[in-house]
This record gives sequence, C-alpha cells and structure tokens, in this order.
Amino acid sequence: MRKITLLIHCKDQKGIIAAVTNFIVKVEGNIIYIDQHVDVEQNVFFMRLETELTNASIPLDSIKTNFEQTIARDFQMSWDFYSKETKPKMALFVSKYNHCLFDILGRHSAGELDIEIPLIISNHIDLKPIADQFNIPFYHVPFTKDNKEEGEKRQIELLQQYQITFIVLARYMQIITPKLIALYKNKIINIHHSFLPAFPGAKPYHSAFKRGVKIIGATSHYVTEELDEGPIIEQDITRVSHINSIEDFIMKGRDLERTVLARAIKLHSERKVMVFENKTVVFY
Amino acid sequence: MRKITLLIHCKDQKGIIAAVTNFIVKVEGNIIYIDQHVDVEQNVFFMRLETELTNASIPLDSIKTNFEQTIARDFQMSWDFYSKETKPKMALFVSKYNHCLFDILGRHSAGELDIEIPLIISNHIDLKPIADQFNIPFYHVPFTKDNKEEGEKRQIELLQQYQITFIVLARYMQIITPKLIALYKNKIINIHHSFLPAFPGAKPYHSAFKRGVKIIGATSHYVTEELDEGPIIEQDITRVSHINSIEDFIMKGRDLERTVLARAIKLHSERKVMVFENKTVVFY
Amino acid sequence: MRKITLLIHCKDQKGIIAAVTNFIVKVEGNIIYIDQHVDVEQNVFFMRLETELTNASIPLDSIKTNFEQTIARDFQMSWDFYSKETKPKMALFVSKYNHCLFDILGRHSAGELDIEIPLIISNHIDLKPIADQFNIPFYHVPFTKDNKEEGEKRQIELLQQYQITFIVLARYMQIITPKLIALYKNKIINIHHSFLPAFPGAKPYHSAFKRGVKIIGATSHYVTEELDEGPIIEQDITRVSHINSIEDFIMKGRDLERTVLARAIKLHSERKVMVFENKTVVFY
Amino acid sequence: MRKITLLIHCKDQKGIIAAVTNFIVKVEGNIIYIDQHVDVEQNVFFMRLETELTNASIPLDSIKTNFEQTIARDFQMSWDFYSKETKPKMALFVSKYNHCLFDILGRHSAGELDIEIPLIISNHIDLKPIADQFNIPFYHVPFTKDNKEEGEKRQIELLQQYQITFIVLARYMQIITPKLIALYKNKIINIHHSFLPAFPGAKPYHSAFKRGVKIIGATSHYVTEELDEGPIIEQDITRVSHINSIEDFIMKGRDLERTVLARAIKLHSERKVMVFENKTVVFY
Repeated sequence: MRKITLLIHCKDQKGIIAAVTNFIVKVEGNIIYIDQHVDVEQNVFFMRLETELTNASIPLDSIKTNFEQTIARDFQMSWDFYSKETKPKMALFVSKYNHCLFDILGRHSAGELDIEIPLIISNHIDLKPIADQFNIPFYHVPFTKDNKEEGEKRQIELLQQYQITFIVLARYMQIITPKLIALYKNKIINIHHSFLPAFPGAKPYHSAFKRGVKIIGATSHYVTEELDEGPIIEQDITRVSHINSIEDFIMKGRDLERTVLARAIKLHSERKVMVFENKTVVFY
Repeated sequence: MRKITLLIHCKDQKGIIAAVTNFIVKVEGNIIYIDQHVDVEQNVFFMRLETELTNASIPLDSIKTNFEQTIARDFQMSWDFYSKETKPKMALFVSKYNHCLFDILGRHSAGELDIEIPLIISNHIDLKPIADQFNIPFYHVPFTKDNKEEGEKRQIELLQQYQITFIVLARYMQIITPKLIALYKNKIINIHHSFLPAFPGAKPYHSAFKRGVKIIGATSHYVTEELDEGPIIEQDITRVSHINSIEDFIMKGRDLERTVLARAIKLHSERKVMVFENKTVVFY
Repeated sequence: MRKITLLIHCKDQKGIIAAVTNFIVKVEGNIIYIDQHVDVEQNVFFMRLETELTNASIPLDSIKTNFEQTIARDFQMSWDFYSKETKPKMALFVSKYNHCLFDILGRHSAGELDIEIPLIISNHIDLKPIADQFNIPFYHVPFTKDNKEEGEKRQIELLQQYQITFIVLARYMQIITPKLIALYKNKIINIHHSFLPAFPGAKPYHSAFKRGVKIIGATSHYVTEELDEGPIIEQDITRVSHINSIEDFIMKGRDLERTVLARAIKLHSERKVMVFENKTVVFY
Repeated sequence: MRKITLLIHCKDQKGIIAAVTNFIVKVEGNIIYIDQHVDVEQNVFFMRLETELTNASIPLDSIKTNFEQTIARDFQMSWDFYSKETKPKMALFVSKYNHCLFDILGRHSAGELDIEIPLIISNHIDLKPIADQFNIPFYHVPFTKDNKEEGEKRQIELLQQYQITFIVLARYMQIITPKLIALYKNKIINIHHSFLPAFPGAKPYHSAFKRGVKIIGATSHYVTEELDEGPIIEQDITRVSHINSIEDFIMKGRDLERTVLARAIKLHSERKVMVFENKTVVFY
C-alpha cells in the first residue's frame, strides 16, 4: 500500500482541517496520523498527515495535481507530498572528531535510520578508515581561506552527483558557505556542543566550565548564515558538578552530541520537522 | 466569547475528523486546539478539541442536541462538552503528611489551578490548622476497620453536599471504598511515592533503598479497586546514590510527589486526560 | 551530642586530610561525613566535614582555638565551624510574584527547612496577606530610583535588627545595592528564570520563546554586582515544544523556579555550598 | 609517574581515613582523588583513592606488602591496588541485537574506553560481520538446554585463554550459568531493558506498554543467580506517551540501553564501583 506524508503550512483560516481530511477521504486515503499546530502570534497553520492510499488505481500524480488545483490554491498553502518509498539521501560532513561519525554509521548499519548515506565529505583525511570500515565513499575536500571557492565548487559537485537531499555536519569544523546554505535551505543539520543560545561559537565546554554551570547541553539546528543562530531542532542536557574537569565536560558532552544529533537526523528524515521564521515545529 | 472543550472517543472509522471539524465550522466555532489519537491495538479513536463559539445567538444546548443527534449517533461516540465557565470542584483527602497539601493550596492561592476547593476531608485532625490558614472547610471523618460504612457514608454525604466533581488523595493513608470508587470512576487521583509498577503498596522508599536503585519516582494515577494498579496520569523521577539515606529518599521524594500530583490535578481539571481500558491518553 | 560542620579551603598541599582527620580523632570527634575537592586549575583544596563531639567536657571554644593555632595556621586555611544548634536566619525579599513565596513558606511550615524566617521585606504591599497568613512580619520598603539610599538604609536596619544571616530574593524585582551585596557577600541567593548564561536580564521567557528553544531552565545563584553573573548554586530545566505559548513557558517555569530556589536555600542553609572565584563547590 | 587506584572496604572504625592518608604521605604518594562512604546501616566504610607515586625508587610490591601488614591488617580491610598501566580485559557476549555492540565498539574505537576487548562470544553467528568489521576475534559458542555443560566449558576456556577480567552481556539472550557467575563474581555486567525492579524478565517493553507507564527505563547491573536481581550500577529513563507504539518504546529504549550500558562499562573499568550486600557504591 502506498504511504504518503503530507506537510502543509499556510495562513490560519477556518475550515482547513475539514477541507484536507475531506480531500483524503475522497481519494480513498486512510489517515493513520494527523497533527496540526497553529502559531497564534504569526497566524500560521501547520499540518502533518500520514495516509495510506487504499485504491491503487488512482495515480499519485493525479492526486497531487488535484490537491494543487483545489485546496492548496484555495488556502494558498506551502505543501509537500513525500512518498515513503523514496529514502532521503544524506551527506555526512566531518573533520577529525569521530564519535558522532561512529554513532551515525552504527545506527545506520543497525537499521535505525531509514535513509541512504551515499558519501562522506571531509576537510581532513583522518577519518577515512572509518568510512572504509563501513564501506561508504569518502571524499577529501580541503577547505581553507585560500581555496574557499574551489572547495565549495567541489562540495556542490559531489552533492549533486550523489543527488543528496540533506546534509549533516557531524562535528564538521568549517564554516559552510552562503551559496551552499542557500542551495540546502533548512536541509543542513549541525550539532553544536552547548545549550544554545548559551555559549555559541568556539570552545563552549571551556566557557561552560569557566562559568561554573551545573548543567551542560547540546543543540542540533539547521544552518543559517548567522553562526549558531539557525532554527533549533532538538536539545538535551546533562548534569555536571565541581568534581568534573573540562575533560569530563567534553566526555559527557560527546554522549549528548551523539544522541541529540541522531534524534535530529531521525526527525528530519521522517519529515517531522517544519521550519517557519527561524523556529521549528516538530511533530513527534 | 464562549469557550468549549469537546472530548470524544469511539471506534476508529473513516471520516471522523472531517465530520467533527465540519460540525464546528457549521456552528460558527473557531477551533483553537485540536488533537487526536488512534489506539491502533484497540482500534479506538480519541479527540480533544477546544473551540470559541463566535455566534452568541446559538444556544449551547441546541449545539449539544444537534451534536448528539447527528455525529455522536452516527459514529457511536462517547463524548462530553465542557464549558470553561464551570470550574471543576475538587475535594482534598489528607491524613498527616502536609507537604502535598501546602503545595496544592499554595498553587491554588497563587492562581495556578482553575478549580474550586470547597472542602478538605481527613481521617485525622492534625492538618486542620492548614485548612484554617487557607480558609477551607475541614471535615474530620475518622475511618477505621470498625467504622468503614459510617465513614464512607459521611464522605459521600459531604461530596454530594459540596457537588464535588473530582477527588484528590494528597497522601491520604486509607483505602478508598469500592462504592466511592464506583461513584467517582476515573475521578479520584492518587499520588503514589514510587515509580509504578515498581514498589506498589506500603513503604516504597524503604524498598527502593533496600534494592539499591539509582533513581526513585512518583506516580499519579486514577484509583481503581486494585491497589496502585489504576490508569497512570503522570510520573517523574529523580536520581539517588549510595550517599543518600532513607531520609534523603523521603525528602527528595516529597518534591516528586508535590510536582507529579500538581501536574495530574492540572491535567485532569483542564480536561486533558481521557481513560480507556486502564490507560490514559493525555493531550498536552 | 554536639554536631559540628567544618568548612575549609586553602592552597592544596600534601597532608591536609591526614592532619584534619587526626585533629578530629584527637578531640574525640566521630566523623559522620567528610568530602573534599581539589580545584586542580586553581590549586585550591576544599573540605566539608561533619562530626559528633563525643566528649562533652571539651568546650567548643577550646577546640576552635586549638584548630586555629595549629592546623588552620600551618595550612593557612579559610575555615568555619558551624554548630547545628544555631539555625540560619533568612530574610525573604519579594515583590509581586507569589509562587516562590508560597512554596518557601509551605516548605518551612512543613518542617523541610532547618532555618528561621524572621521577616519578609517587599517593595510592594501586595503580598502582605501571605505573610500574615503564615504569621511572618512583613515590611514594606519602597525602593525606587529616587529613594535608593533611604531604601537601602531601611533594608540594612531591618536585616541587622533581626540578625539575618542570609537573604533570599524570591522573584524580587529590584536591583540590590552594592553596599548590601558587600555586607552579605555570597549570602544573597537569587532565582533567575532562565538557564544562565542564556537569557540574562529581563523577560527571559519571552526571549526563549522567540529563539525557539526546546528546553527552558532556571538558575539560582549568589548575587554579585554583575547582574546574573554570580556563582551558580543550582540549575534545572524542563522541555518545551512548539505547542507551548509564552504563557505555558511562564507556567512551566514557575515549577522550575520554585524547585531550584528551594534546593539552593536548603543547600546554603545546610552549609553545603562553598564559593571560590565566582564558582561554587556543592557538597551533596 | 605511577598512578595507583586503591579500593577499600571494612567495618567502620575511628581513624581509618587518617591512617590511610598518612600511609600515602609516607610512601611519597600525591593524593589526586579521595572519596569515602559510610554505610550507616551496615556499619561499613568504603574508600576510593587515586595517588601518583612520586618516588620511583620505592617498588610497588613493597608498598603493597607494607600496606597489607600494617593498615589492612589493623583494620581488617578488603582492599585492592590497581595500576593504571594494566588495562582491564573485557569479553563481550552477544546474541542477535546489534545496537549495543555497535555502540561499544564505536566508543572503543573512538578511544573512550580504556580497556582491551580481546574477543566476542555469541550463541548465534549473526553478528560475526560486525566483529570482523572492527577486527575483533568472534567465537560462536552455541548454548542451548542440551549443550549447557559443553557451552559453559567452552566459554570458560575462552575467557581464561584471553585472561578476561570482566564480561559484558550486550543484550546476550541466554542465562549465564552459576559456575560462570561464581568465577566472575560482580564482574559480569548485564543491561536490562526496563527500570528495575519494574518489569524483570522477558519482554519488558511489552509489559510497560500494557501498563501504560509514562516513563521507560534501562538498568545495568551485575549478574547474580537471581535473574535481574543483582546489584544495580546505573539506570536511566526517557519519557513516553500514548502516541508511542511498542515499536517506539523499543526504539527509544535502544538509546537508553546503549547509554546506560556504556556508562556501566566505563565506571566498572575505571574501578569506580564497589559492591556490598547486593548494592553498589559508585564513586563518580
């Protein structure tokens, strides 16, 4: 049976839910999940709906066209249909830290992530053996002040060659260029090793240690041009105390980084995250 | 503007959401919250909907009758309309522990609970001064093996006299009688000082200490005839370690009991909890 | 039996623990708790020790003098002996928010805090009825830009009159003057309604909502001249999501504020917190 | 510089700490960590001490003999000296679940665990490719009702051949025999996928789902002859709700199992866990 995920957002208006659910009934869909949210401040309506199309004789394209020309037009919706059959294709960007890489590849091998990982891109050669161990093509794309344009060009070539749909920065230690951000708007996921907006930028564990906080955190977010300012997908925290050294902070933080990034990848790849005005709506 | 909360559950069927939302549109309601859940195993559909009725000229009773004779009948729904104007009336049952009582009365005084607390019933006289301090009628209803029937009779009289809609056992140390449970089915909230189903019954902190657990908990649940086996509304936990004595467990547990019970009261009084087959659906 | 708590900090050196524990053995003390910490970066040693003095014929003063003239001098210690018999005297500063006030007074009445609360000081009159309800003297000390000096003078007079040993700002909405801070160095506890250093200053829940965080927090800290920059005693967090409004943030935050402030009060009053260089050592 | 970890437990008596710290001073050790605990109920004293021996000319063996013949004898201590230079050797027992295996091997490869993993033993052949991928010898030791003795014999042979010091059951789905438990007393770590003592035995996620709990957990513990009754090392939990299916419980639980087991391995391998009377003292 064909499973479809439908994401919608539009100006909040009367009758949207009734219209959409009526539409699904009409095309012989069985709604297996529906959730919606109204951002009262912005007056925006969000909906996520999963449906099984029980009548195989109605082509998906005609459903889409029908939706587009009726409801989507009437309510001026931004919308997307995703078929469960098409797996998202994720590119991994890494530098020298290996813990998130091991974790993601382990989860992928264990069947926890319903995605493809066609390639790994790194500005260093250090982690190639891990890519080899998991049989994933590894591309060394150096990226420095001096070769920015060339590096960016090579990155984009590779992403297009492999038809990548979203990018994960698994502790990638380089700025992403505005051009790449624009190409993958709200499709580049970063893990920052602090409880944002506390301690943005470099060396957050050192700053947290210096400030004497009792809790440290990690934050996964979409990359925007403003460093560590993009829409937050997921955060988590763990307790620390005076007995913990900076090294302890870093070690405890690794567990946070792993978990928070893995959750963000899972949420994004299952089309559970919508972005509006630098905030996310996450339908669990 | 009249605000209505609608709770529904029925056999899962096609078209329920569309039917209900169409109905709300028809009676000129503005949906401000809607959430639903399908229990796939039991094939049961649950919905919670909040609406503002914008047309004051349509009487609430006619809306109810209309709903009853059309949708509710068609889908064989169990359903309830609650008007925000009618505050739930809560009876507090206590014995000798005062921490939950202080917490609930403090929250109520601080305006956090949109309920009335017309009376406190206790099998001991000890906490009367607190009731006096907060100006709430206090009834001493002794309850022992020997006066069970009399005690139950007096409890029920008082509950009816004050038109009580739900009961909270704030560390009330007596069994509730089957008759009272039947009268207030899924309307008596207990706080048990363990992470159920671990450590049911008496002295859970002592058992937890003996077992050497690293985490203790508290559980709020509706009272059923099976002790500590009723539908769970809310749970929370806190860490303990070898340095903690039983007294520490009890002290840390008090904070859990307060918080978990307060959340359950809030959820119940805002009509966010539905019960089906000894489990709850909690719409946050 | 006399119970003594001993707090020590000094430059880290060989033999401190042995010297101190030998001393306690010599004065016939039974060590019931000992914990220590070395701040490796700063090279500072911290110790907290609880002892029962089993020989009533040795006067406490002679023990103190002995300690001062031998170990304390040899190791150039900062140190304090606290007798369990002397309860700390806490002044509560409040403005208009009542939830922390209810919580603290409820806990105190329930016997959870081993302190005295001789008075409440407020820049508004609103919360006087709560003080009356709990039978605690309430002083209205207006505090504005124009009467700063007069207000500060009155505050200090009252604190001295009641021999106050520490101050708790239970959502007190006024700046504390440098003079008062100097008089009660590391003895004024504030509760800030964010996960510091995120969102210092005014309206943190609004800022958190705007940023789209997935977790909110509260922080209790000692007041220093730099706003919200003092040594952190305790922090805690709770999850939020897109479904939560600013009002929900505020409501969930109230529970955090209550709990985090209560823990800080308990830790401070039990002499479990030591401060060094804007960070705390908290011996649980 | 030689680093030594010293673990001690004995009947609580006056003067232990002074005696031990004096001893360390005498052998020119620099104490870098010391923690102790008194189990008041059982009247047992526990201590963990890390020291750097600054004088290389004093042989470790003479220190040990000295300790044994003086303090250890005087206080009738159970004690152990561990040198940081000798890494613990861990055997992994697995069956068919791969997530804990990937996690542990990933962490080990990433340098987070200061241990050796000389072999993996499994009653199934399924996970051999993962062992191969990480270059760790894999032994298929079938284990059924009918070959119990033979299987146990083979397990013990392998453990002795590789000089294994502790065993980790990474979701190993077979009972460990009493003989093996006796050989590795408090040295076999299991991960149970519930918040023990809730839901011991088989299919805990199914039982948790049926009970309608709002929180699920995982527990790492030492294996004893009583199933799921051994000393608890670490526990953690995560929230669930009515929207979660059994499959969601299992998926969320995998993250708990990974994290809780990894923490237990780290604590055990760093000699931070002591066991007494079916409870653990965990020195963080």
